[in-house]
Amino acid sequence: MTMHVRKLLTVVTEAGLERRLVEDLRQLGARGWTITDARGQGHRGKRALDWEYEGNIRLEVICEESLAERLASHFREHYYQDYAMILFLQDVEVLRPEKF
Amino acid sequence: MTMHVRKLLTVVTEAGLERRLVEDLRQLGARGWTITDARGQGHRGKRALDWEYEGNIRLEVICEESLAERLASHFREHYYQDYAMILFLQDVEVLRPEKF
Amino acid sequence: MTMHVRKLLTVVTEAGLERRLVEDLRQLGARGWTITDARGQGHRGKRALDWEYEGNIRLEVICEESLAERLASHFREHYYQDYAMILFLQDVEVLRPEKF
Repeated sequence: MTMHVRKLLTVVTEAGLERRLVEDLRQLGARGWTITDARGQGHRGKRALDWEYEGNIRLEVICEESLAERLASHFREHYYQDYAMILFLQDVEVLRPEKF
Repeated sequence: MTMHVRKLLTVVTEAGLERRLVEDLRQLGARGWTITDARGQGHRGKRALDWEYEGNIRLEVICEESLAERLASHFREHYYQDYAMILFLQDVEVLRPEKF
Repeated sequence: MTMHVRKLLTVVTEAGLERRLVEDLRQLGARGWTITDARGQGHRGKRALDWEYEGNIRLEVICEESLAERLASHFREHYYQDYAMILFLQDVEVLRPEKF
């Protein structure tokens, strides 16, 4: 079974951003994504306030490393200052690289 | 703390497949799995249609590499053509290898 | 884009433990976490019973390796014997290490 390495980008943020993030994903060229509802606690942007509430989402995108970095940069520029958001990257192995 | 390496297999697919996938997991020898509800968008099998809807699931199984590959092969053979499904593999460290 | 490596600790356990785990996370110094509702099946501690039910949670914490190991040790000591719980560790890349 031949596997191919891609990047998994995971973003945890406020549920109210879902529509905007999906639009960003489309415009930047992501071919698929998965969203689950989440809750949690963290530290909020420059406002330095803690946040803790139900209305979070956990968004996953698998793609080539270059697109993962463009997405991460885009999210950082547009949302880090004003929204609760964390993101992290991992390598994953996939079967059908043409899908990602 | 001694950690052991296992494979984490993640499958994102249509919620209607949950019962069949769980049956597959049992028959192929998986000892545990985790399922969360998800939504998202992707590219659907050979029909080449985009899919986007609420009723997805995200299934995780941690197991030995050989079983992870058998599961991935089985899912590919039985579901890739007719269902929306992606899967990916990662290494994870576990404390109690006998559970996986 | 400069990325920094941190540990992602994922815990899947009974939903009834959520409040206690969050208190543990606070006391041991975690700065953020994400929780999603999950279901699944596994093998339950020393009682050697299978468990399968809706009421699971999937908890994620990103932090320095030393804290991830303290958390894993703490959970093992306090919950492994009496509760259904699995946990696993992975390396992840993050943008803002000061948040974790």
